[in-house]
Amino acid sequence: QVVPMDEINLHFTGDFHAIASAHNLLSAMLDNHLHHGNALGLDVRRITWPRTMDMNDRALRSIVIGMGGLNGGPTREDRFVIVPGSEVMAILCLARDLADLELRLSRIIVGLTRDRKPVTAGELKASGAMTLLLKDAILPNLVQTLEGGPALVHGGPFGNIAHGCNSLVATRLGLGLADIVLTEAGFGADLGAEKFFDIKCRFGDLKPDAAVIVATVRALKMNGGVKKDALGTPDVAALRRGLVNLEGHVQNVAKFGLPPIVALNRFTSDSEEELACVLDAARSWGARVALSEVWARGGAGGEAVAEQILAALKEGKADFRPLYDVALPIKEKIETIAREIYGAAGVDYSSAADKAIAQCESMGLGNTPVCMAKTQYSFSDDATKLGRPTGFRITVRDVYPSAGAGFVVALAGDIMTMPGLAKVPAAEAMRVHADGTIDGLF
Amino acid sequence: QVVPMDEINLHFTGDFHAIASAHNLLSAMLDNHLHHGNALGLDVRRITWPRTMDMNDRALRSIVIGMGGLNGGPTREDRFVIVPGSEVMAILCLARDLADLELRLSRIIVGLTRDRKPVTAGELKASGAMTLLLKDAILPNLVQTLEGGPALVHGGPFGNIAHGCNSLVATRLGLGLADIVLTEAGFGADLGAEKFFDIKCRFGDLKPDAAVIVATVRALKMNGGVKKDALGTPDVAALRRGLVNLEGHVQNVAKFGLPPIVALNRFTSDSEEELACVLDAARSWGARVALSEVWARGGAGGEAVAEQILAALKEGKADFRPLYDVALPIKEKIETIAREIYGAAGVDYSSAADKAIAQCESMGLGNTPVCMAKTQYSFSDDATKLGRPTGFRITVRDVYPSAGAGFVVALAGDIMTMPGLAKVPAAEAMRVHADGTIDGLF
Amino acid sequence: QVVPMDEINLHFTGDFHAIASAHNLLSAMLDNHLHHGNALGLDVRRITWPRTMDMNDRALRSIVIGMGGLNGGPTREDRFVIVPGSEVMAILCLARDLADLELRLSRIIVGLTRDRKPVTAGELKASGAMTLLLKDAILPNLVQTLEGGPALVHGGPFGNIAHGCNSLVATRLGLGLADIVLTEAGFGADLGAEKFFDIKCRFGDLKPDAAVIVATVRALKMNGGVKKDALGTPDVAALRRGLVNLEGHVQNVAKFGLPPIVALNRFTSDSEEELACVLDAARSWGARVALSEVWARGGAGGEAVAEQILAALKEGKADFRPLYDVALPIKEKIETIAREIYGAAGVDYSSAADKAIAQCESMGLGNTPVCMAKTQYSFSDDATKLGRPTGFRITVRDVYPSAGAGFVVALAGDIMTMPGLAKVPAAEAMRVHADGTIDGLF
Amino acid sequence: QVVPMDEINLHFTGDFHAIASAHNLLSAMLDNHLHHGNALGLDVRRITWPRTMDMNDRALRSIVIGMGGLNGGPTREDRFVIVPGSEVMAILCLARDLADLELRLSRIIVGLTRDRKPVTAGELKASGAMTLLLKDAILPNLVQTLEGGPALVHGGPFGNIAHGCNSLVATRLGLGLADIVLTEAGFGADLGAEKFFDIKCRFGDLKPDAAVIVATVRALKMNGGVKKDALGTPDVAALRRGLVNLEGHVQNVAKFGLPPIVALNRFTSDSEEELACVLDAARSWGARVALSEVWARGGAGGEAVAEQILAALKEGKADFRPLYDVALPIKEKIETIAREIYGAAGVDYSSAADKAIAQCESMGLGNTPVCMAKTQYSFSDDATKLGRPTGFRITVRDVYPSAGAGFVVALAGDIMTMPGLAKVPAAEAMRVHADGTIDGLF
Repeated sequence: QVVPMDEINLHFTGDFHAIASAHNLLSAMLDNHLHHGNALGLDVRRITWPRTMDMNDRALRSIVIGMGGLNGGPTREDRFVIVPGSEVMAILCLARDLADLELRLSRIIVGLTRDRKPVTAGELKASGAMTLLLKDAILPNLVQTLEGGPALVHGGPFGNIAHGCNSLVATRLGLGLADIVLTEAGFGADLGAEKFFDIKCRFGDLKPDAAVIVATVRALKMNGGVKKDALGTPDVAALRRGLVNLEGHVQNVAKFGLPPIVALNRFTSDSEEELACVLDAARSWGARVALSEVWARGGAGGEAVAEQILAALKEGKADFRPLYDVALPIKEKIETIAREIYGAAGVDYSSAADKAIAQCESMGLGNTPVCMAKTQYSFSDDATKLGRPTGFRITVRDVYPSAGAGFVVALAGDIMTMPGLAKVPAAEAMRVHADGTIDGLF
Repeated sequence: QVVPMDEINLHFTGDFHAIASAHNLLSAMLDNHLHHGNALGLDVRRITWPRTMDMNDRALRSIVIGMGGLNGGPTREDRFVIVPGSEVMAILCLARDLADLELRLSRIIVGLTRDRKPVTAGELKASGAMTLLLKDAILPNLVQTLEGGPALVHGGPFGNIAHGCNSLVATRLGLGLADIVLTEAGFGADLGAEKFFDIKCRFGDLKPDAAVIVATVRALKMNGGVKKDALGTPDVAALRRGLVNLEGHVQNVAKFGLPPIVALNRFTSDSEEELACVLDAARSWGARVALSEVWARGGAGGEAVAEQILAALKEGKADFRPLYDVALPIKEKIETIAREIYGAAGVDYSSAADKAIAQCESMGLGNTPVCMAKTQYSFSDDATKLGRPTGFRITVRDVYPSAGAGFVVALAGDIMTMPGLAKVPAAEAMRVHADGTIDGLF
Repeated sequence: QVVPMDEINLHFTGDFHAIASAHNLLSAMLDNHLHHGNALGLDVRRITWPRTMDMNDRALRSIVIGMGGLNGGPTREDRFVIVPGSEVMAILCLARDLADLELRLSRIIVGLTRDRKPVTAGELKASGAMTLLLKDAILPNLVQTLEGGPALVHGGPFGNIAHGCNSLVATRLGLGLADIVLTEAGFGADLGAEKFFDIKCRFGDLKPDAAVIVATVRALKMNGGVKKDALGTPDVAALRRGLVNLEGHVQNVAKFGLPPIVALNRFTSDSEEELACVLDAARSWGARVALSEVWARGGAGGEAVAEQILAALKEGKADFRPLYDVALPIKEKIETIAREIYGAAGVDYSSAADKAIAQCESMGLGNTPVCMAKTQYSFSDDATKLGRPTGFRITVRDVYPSAGAGFVVALAGDIMTMPGLAKVPAAEAMRVHADGTIDGLF
Repeated sequence: QVVPMDEINLHFTGDFHAIASAHNLLSAMLDNHLHHGNALGLDVRRITWPRTMDMNDRALRSIVIGMGGLNGGPTREDRFVIVPGSEVMAILCLARDLADLELRLSRIIVGLTRDRKPVTAGELKASGAMTLLLKDAILPNLVQTLEGGPALVHGGPFGNIAHGCNSLVATRLGLGLADIVLTEAGFGADLGAEKFFDIKCRFGDLKPDAAVIVATVRALKMNGGVKKDALGTPDVAALRRGLVNLEGHVQNVAKFGLPPIVALNRFTSDSEEELACVLDAARSWGARVALSEVWARGGAGGEAVAEQILAALKEGKADFRPLYDVALPIKEKIETIAREIYGAAGVDYSSAADKAIAQCESMGLGNTPVCMAKTQYSFSDDATKLGRPTGFRITVRDVYPSAGAGFVVALAGDIMTMPGLAKVPAAEAMRVHADGTIDGLF
């Protein structure tokens, strides 16, 4: 755990707010441009730039703006995405420095003209002010573990709807300061790891030497069919059924040329037999594996995993390579990811996605990586398909250009770029007392 | 000038962002409540709680949310207000401490049930988490002048659409630390001063001893009919015509029992004759007056004004009293302000305002102060009526409860709670260079 | 009563349906024009042409159309008006023949370009097809009274929201066929009669010879303050209080140069004293007056009124003249009507109305009659002001061009161009039985 | 051709208008019910009853209604369908008499409560008044051919988006009056014929004795890949390629137990070799076939087809049976139609369709026929797949209950229930001259 955890979970250093401001400034300047005569000739029906808010707000998923006659500017359909899904977040995380940040922001495509030419943030003269709003946000944030170890926490593009990696600036800072840098890639390795390798490493010329896959007995039992409230009961049979999920991730990592290291995160409810079962299985697949007991024992509890990592580095067998050639057509890239990483039988495209892909390729975005947006609960795009499903097809329902980030986003299945709150939101239990103590935040 | 000015104009300490987050959390919880069955029985047509964004975004003035079928929750009309117009901003500025903050937040009325009973943020269980999001924002921010003088910059409810004063916490902190505290009340004295006296002083038990009215030759000439691009040319005749505006403000301040001190802010383009004209006039109305040359000469340039203030304090003739008795009916309070401060002949109410006033009174908000929202460009609600107009009527087009802040807001004329960008937004000229220097922010 | 009354209350000869089709064809062609590139350069925010439906449908008063991305064409705000408020209805009622109908339809202004030039139905090439859809609707419909007397029922522009007269074609047909033609002008004489004289007579070169004002004891008692459920009880005092209303109408009619004839419609609940009271009062104002007992006695019951009409015709004192000169500015025309006919102290204009009037005058509609849209329940624009109110002001909240009809429409007070259903709609009680008998229609 | 053709193409006897009025009355009463408190507890997000208009109006495909605060009633998403796609049209065409009409109207499901119970037109007390509005529309309309032959023209549910057959009342009237009745089922035999057999014949206890399939050389060449502007040039090779389309329809008809008779409609541009090619092919499939020359020679030109029909009737081999058992689950019925009639490899369902099917079955609509809505341009749901495609899958994107009509509607592919106008609408060329002659209607 890193501190100050409560601040990290609240406003922290304000990076998310700055990203939201920069993003929404572009939105406001876009609609202002329409209001004042639309000199760039944007087709109001073909605007793809959304607004953003750092809030799980279902009611903003799909909206109509510009109501109220002349006062409100042109009426049009719009949508809010959550800040971790904003292209500005992706850009901040992929930019090398302030100049690159401004360049990338200027390339953002906000929509098309009636003859389908892209219109950019640069043409709207928004990228300078957006960069200004991000001038502090681009600086990495240094925090520490409870034992004083340094950690950089910077950027938060969610691994399901965005590229799932912390900032390139922070990673490069780490590489400049330390011998070994561990970086997290969000959600399942089918999402975070694939995008870390195919997007961030490619853009940042990073050459990872090993891949750590974090596993838990509980999650594997869930993949074996156990309900959430029964996960505390030992169930080796279910665990064995669920192991195919971990095996899939181990095999996937190897496809990028990296030695897989499984870190099995120990919970107090895990039985020895269960733990042994996972460790044995991982070894049988040729992976390195070790128990991680950081939760119970702090840094000392992580030594076993650290030793496996060091051993892998010493062995030096890594031969990192991205999964696909960016020069392939967009659909081939999507299908490569779907078949190789997800285990899908194929990919279906909605007619909207077909048109959007053709549009992206006609705008020169055909040779960029693809950032898949997909549920994190399954290798497939159907959250209920657990374990390691086969024979399924991935449905790509829409594709968006992220020309500033440098990729195209493909939305698979029902994935939403704006979450909703639960029936009983966690916020209902949150309080701060007069003495500054906090309830309900964790 | 205070530093760091660029930060103050950008994200500063993040207070505005925190206010926006707290505000929009309530919005999201409200729509989430509707989506999950509306147990509190809110009438979807009678929801008054808006969303907020710290952006001049005309297109968000009037919107429809919750589109997209079941996914988006109930469809309804909504609107965004700018953060300085958020009731959460007003509450933060009027709360005495964290406990009072939470109490006030819990009293926010988000809408009505079908039988017109108010529903509050407290009933939605949102006020605890909102307070948590504001735990740092409630702490005043200390900055300094270029000469090292301390200044507290805290809160920003605009004087036209909100109550126009910095936070009570900051003012009380100042009073605890210094012999004399100067505090600013936004926009014209018809707006900022009236609301400072009738709202903030009343709520905070503050007893001001003098009122400084800042005047410029340029603004008075504009009130005398001179166009913006001709303000640099001496024009004593126009200045004399415009002096009635300043006279109005001087007379208004006296109605609160305070000695008026005019600080005449010198510009390089002002002629000696013009300056003398204002100084003489102010003295003829019985006001203290002095030239302020802070822009050119720093702190020393303010000494003449300071001496007048000290003299007034020494004289000790202040007998502060609010303008109206809060126990009066809402319409009488509005009419008192309109006649006494604005010089109006009367007040007209739209039928929406009539109904809203009756509703406010039926909810127990009849005996609170009224926070007028009105253009800052005229004593009237018509921005084109300069000088000191007479015979006009004020039109109140709507009234909102601000039960958490402790007042009701009356919207006069065409005043908007969400501004728009200019045809050429200032943002177009903003840039930050690699060395950190900034263009276009001032 | 005329027959077939049930058909007249249902689809009749389909004229309303034809008008709706012609109206909505223009709407569809307009949005289709926007969808296919907007070659005429319409400003989507400045479209004023609504859609129409022959249904009291509150939910269609204010809508957003063109949702669903590219499939739906440009998103914009729209509204439905009821068919009797459609400009096509007004045009059908004012056209002299098929050629004039097409010409007028082609002049309909659907909206403005960004530089505020009007765009017409003719420019959208819609007027030919609209005329085709109206080719049968323009033919008057002949029905008969229960005693076999002929009556022309043709057109239905409501007297509150439209010009309130049947078609000019029907009136001219009547004048060609009979010595004396009686024509009805809808709702109160402040609405129907004023517009009959100032719009229809002016356009159709009609010279009426007398004006019959229909009065009832019940309505006069209501104007004297009696509640609806007490109208059956004799109350001469209340009746006397309400007589000022009738006096107003009598005096108004005289302002057009016509002899007023009051037809007092007898109800079974009227007392002899009440009837005498009205008859005496009318005579004291110099009006002709007679009891009408058509409901009880058929044609014979109308003879007394008919004799008064014949006497007035014989006397030949009519000197018909419209109330105002069309060459006056729009505001002067509105104020003439408001002061002379309604008895108002003056007129206030919303800023929207101010702009719309200026726009109408800039488009060459400054010298047309004004068609007031106002509640029929009061001389004022406030339905609760009964009797003959004085000292009130009329509020004009918006003004629409009706260039095809040849006038501008001024909306006063809260008048709606799309009614709503009652809490228990009359339709709930309607049925047709297998034998064709009908319940609930009357 | 039947006369009066122009009237049939305009308002005719007003049946479509009456259907629109009845349909929209239910819509207005529904929203009025919501406005006045929603006593039936409808879930505003789960209302499926649309509005309707007899106009190709793309902009009404997807709309938001009830805007404007309290005045407009609850805001919600809505859509307009074209009148031929209205459930009221289907009901009118399937009702046996006035009583059955009212019963069916009362069964219309307008939406669901929050706990997913259906709410009907009967519960809204709308079905009586709706029936009243349809009292004349239910009576069949008799017209005649140019040679005086009688024809009944009654009802118009389009074959692509609705069940595609004229009214049962008209068919039964014909059967009571003539020895042989020919009835048309709209669009391709995969749509109109399948729904005639599976819906109308099933509901009306009709037992057809033969099926006439109308073919043209031109359409078959288009199915063979010829562009529209080259259809006038003889091209036997393309014709042969396209013949698989006709073969599919012939084989489909046989699956209902009926002898197929191909009527080859002769065009002046058809070559003798092309005609012979089709005639020979049809005979080789075992179908009866004859040239139809009605366009050129009137009734006499139809004798050859008539003789084939008579011969088929005389042969008496018909053994009519519907394609599927209505007791099958909805998905099995859809898949039977897709495989047997369309030649699809299978059916995919959107998640919306999955939920809607489960909902329909839970409401007791599981054992009704399915009315497929699908493009008429292809056996598949993709209008570009000509000839007789194989291996394709049908995508069902949504399913609606039509409880009054007695079936469920399945929307396949991109089929729209509200068409749009062309870039140059046919209406632009329409005119009626003073003498009544009409341009541009045909």
